[in-house]
Parts: sequence; structure tokens; C-alpha cells
Amino acid sequence: MLGARPKPRLRFGAGIEPGERVLPEETGVALSFNGTTQAVMMATPDHLEDFAYGFALTEGLVAADEIDSVSVIEAGPGLDVQVWVSEDADLRLKERRRSMLGPVGCGLCGIDSLEQVFRDLPAVAPNGFSMTPAQIIAAITALRGEQRLHDATRAVHCAAWWSAGALRLAREDVGRHNALDKLVGAMVRASTHPTAAALSSRYDPAQGAVVMTSRLSIDLVQKVASLGAPVIIAVSSPTADAVELADRLGITLIAQARPDGFEVFTHTDRIATETEYAR
Amino acid sequence: MLGARPKPRLRFGAGIEPGERVLPEETGVALSFNGTTQAVMMATPDHLEDFAYGFALTEGLVAADEIDSVSVIEAGPGLDVQVWVSEDADLRLKERRRSMLGPVGCGLCGIDSLEQVFRDLPAVAPNGFSMTPAQIIAAITALRGEQRLHDATRAVHCAAWWSAGALRLAREDVGRHNALDKLVGAMVRASTHPTAAALSSRYDPAQGAVVMTSRLSIDLVQKVASLGAPVIIAVSSPTADAVELADRLGITLIAQARPDGFEVFTHTDRIATETEYAR
Repeated sequence: MLGARPKPRLRFGAGIEPGERVLPEETGVALSFNGTTQAVMMATPDHLEDFAYGFALTEGLVAADEIDSVSVIEAGPGLDVQVWVSEDADLRLKERRRSMLGPVGCGLCGIDSLEQVFRDLPAVAPNGFSMTPAQIIAAITALRGEQRLHDATRAVHCAAWWSAGALRLAREDVGRHNALDKLVGAMVRASTHPTAAALSSRYDPAQGAVVMTSRLSIDLVQKVASLGAPVIIAVSSPTADAVELADRLGITLIAQARPDGFEVFTHTDRIATETEYAR
Repeated sequence: MLGARPKPRLRFGAGIEPGERVLPEETGVALSFNGTTQAVMMATPDHLEDFAYGFALTEGLVAADEIDSVSVIEAGPGLDVQVWVSEDADLRLKERRRSMLGPVGCGLCGIDSLEQVFRDLPAVAPNGFSMTPAQIIAAITALRGEQRLHDATRAVHCAAWWSAGALRLAREDVGRHNALDKLVGAMVRASTHPTAAALSSRYDPAQGAVVMTSRLSIDLVQKVASLGAPVIIAVSSPTADAVELADRLGITLIAQARPDGFEVFTHTDRIATETEYAR
């Protein structure tokens, strides 16, 4: 299975039992723009073209229509995802690299000062999009059916896109931020694909929700804001700071979402309750 | 509680119920060495002196005895952990920064090429250290009692140090690599404290095991190798690549560790079974 392979192990329980367990793969992935490495991350080695599009968009590097091509090359101990962008975009990236001074941190690609942690992102504007409690429960329940790599390994995250009554796309990765970037890239590529015009409203970021298996940290809320999605739903808890950021950025943050209920921390007006239906 | 604060939320279940949930804090933390920022990460804002020592050691930046002082300063939207190091160490860090070209990735601080992902680390040499299955079960069971922040928030990771029959130290963080760095820093500081000479064998990295609540990725195995600990025990799964790295680096990797059993993926000779006891 792509993204997973078995490893032998000894199980110690009631007795000692040899056997094997299927484990997720974790590969060094470099993202290069016009031949220069922009970032190196550990990731599940599938859907890397989606990853390139999604990372470029959610980190504010280049727009989807500035990307000419993406190819994945084996490079020594890992994979090099080579993104070729327009001349304008390349000049902008070169300028950005020049203004950066040195090594940086985890989950914050390309950040070299505290001021950059809270990059300036536009708030997601109210546009009438809402979900009913039943739709939220249905979305989180359906997520379980999209986790093929997790079914095999019990150790990866999933990010999915819900729109117009159903989950439309899902992507998995050992890193939750990578899973989200792959999802965003898949949405962008699906909506811009020439034969997909009729489907494109399903991938309109303003008309749906990101649904995730993981906890919600600041970087995930920032990526959702970059995408322009109004709602994020997660199985686990947010951080207090992720809640405050979602509040500022106009995003409805829903967490602890399980088949029997969920908790809404911000912008509850996007939950269409029965009272509103009755109006 | 340090590291957590409550946030209001609406719970949708059988009915709609207002209330609050205690959530972990997530703060931008800059690590500066002699006034220059080396890394910026999102972290739980406690035990940051431990974090500075541990990060410096596990990333191979400076040795503990090259650190003159550490102080934590509020800096705009986050915290600046200011580490002051010897002149020699400072020159080495300056040289290292000069050789780095640009922005880098997640979980791989200061990496700007695929070749650097697999940094050259010495293998942990066999030294006779072993644990019985009962000790491993006891260590993972005791871990649950060390998770004060997790008890309040259900959303942070814990890394603990087991040695001579008991857990000796534990640290928590929203990031699992940060929890491990805080633990390593706490061990180093405990073992070098002038009044702790009698206790120092408890913190000898060669004579114990790192015990973690999380999955095990490559970066965690690298940090354990930098520490020089022979055993890592985790509640969740490793990646296939983390298993291969632990094998190469001479580390016994134990995962899926629960009160009813555990799985050993590498260097099983450090598990002292009853047969060996009978010798």
C-alpha cells in the first residue's frame, strides 16, 4: 500500500508473540520553486502534487495560476517536489528568501521572527453559508470512511472537504498540516481542471467546511483562513490560541466532534438551528 | 493553570448546552543564542529554560556546559528565550547560520536540504542496560499519572524519563518534540545541578528509557539518539522510517505500549525476559 509498509515486531502481552505491524511511511520531502529549495518536511509520500499546490497557497507563496508544472523526483534520501512557477512569482520568492535570515521553526515554515507567527490574513467574510447540527454530525461520521491509510496503520491524520451535503475530497498524511495542505491542493486542482467546470462549485472554499481528525493549532487555522473556508470541524480539541485566532479571522471553529455531538467555540451563527429553520 | 485556560463553547448533543472547556495554550517561542534568533516554534509556555537546554542539546547546537544563562522575556506576540553561550559556541553557531540558505521545514529545525534530514548521529552503544516486560508496563502505566496538563485539557503530549525502577521526570507540551526537548533539558539541568550529585545517576541517559504518549517519528528518534538513551517507549505507533532509524542507531523502539502489553520493533536484546533471569 502506498504510504505504508509492514515491519516485524515482537508483541509482549499474555505471552511473547512474533508478527508484524503495518506502519506509515515518513519521507523527507523538499519543495523547490524554479530549482531552489523553499522548505523540507517529513511527509507521507503520496499526493505530492496536491501538497505542492496546497503548501504554496496556504503559506501565501504563489497563486495556483502562477504554477506552470509540478514534478516529483527521487533525490538521495527523499523526494524533491519541483514546482515551476511564472517569472513574476519566482522574483517574488527570491525577494522573500533574501529577507529571511536563518533557520526557523516547527509548524511555521519560513518564519524567522515572532512577528511573523501572526501573519496578516484577511478575515473570512460572512456569506450566508451555514450547516445544521445534523450535517456536522454526518460530516464527522463520514470522515471515518475516508481514512484508508489510517485503517491500515492507525497512525495518520486525515483532512477532508465537506460541501453541498457530502464529503467531496479527503487526503491523509503523517503530519496534520501536510494532510490539510494536500486537501487544499486537491481542491484547487479539482476546481481549475478544464473538464471540471460543472463540479467547481463543490470546491468553492467559501461554500463548505474543512473536516479534520486532529487537534487544531494556530497553523491549521491560518491555513484554513488562507483557503478562505468559513468552517473548520475537528475530532479533537483546539488550543486556546487557535480559538482566539479563529474568532478574529471570522472562522467557525467546531471541535470535539463525534457521532454523538460537538462543541462550537466561535461564530456560532453559522450553525443553522431548528429555531432558524422555523423562521 | 499554567499552560491552559478556559474558553466558552456551545455543546450540541442531545440538546444545546452553554459551558466552557479548558484548552491548552500555544505560544510563539523564539530561541535566541547570544541575541540572534535561531528558531521560532509554537509551544506550551512553561518550563522554557528546560526547553532551551534540551533543544540546544538534541539539535546538536551547543553542549550544556557551554550555556552561561537562560532567561525568558516577553516579546510582542510571544516569548523570547534568550540563551547566552560561550564565545566558542557563539562562533560555531554563527558559522552554522552562515551555511544555511533559507526557510526550512516542520519538525526539522534548521534543515534546508534533504541530505540534512538524516544527520550523522553516533549509534547508542550496548552497555548492558535492559528492562523487564513488567518494568515497561509499569513505566507506561505510571506515565498516565504525570500528565497534569493533559488531565485538564485532554490535548497535550507528555515525555518522561524512566530510570532505576521509576519515572523520574516528566514534561508536557502541545508539541511532542517540544515535550521531549523539555524533558532532555530537565534531565541535563538536574544532573548538573551542584547539589544533585548524589541523584545524578538517575539522570544518566545511558541508564534509562524515554517514555512518550505520542507517535514516534524520525525527529523523535534523532533526539533520543542525541541524548544517548538506549530505549524509547511510546503509547502509539512509530513510522516505518523511525523504526529503521532506531535500528541503525542502536535504539530499542517499543510502541503500542499499554497496561496490557507492548510491541518491540528493534534491538529486542534489551528486553530482559524470564529466560534470561533464570540464567
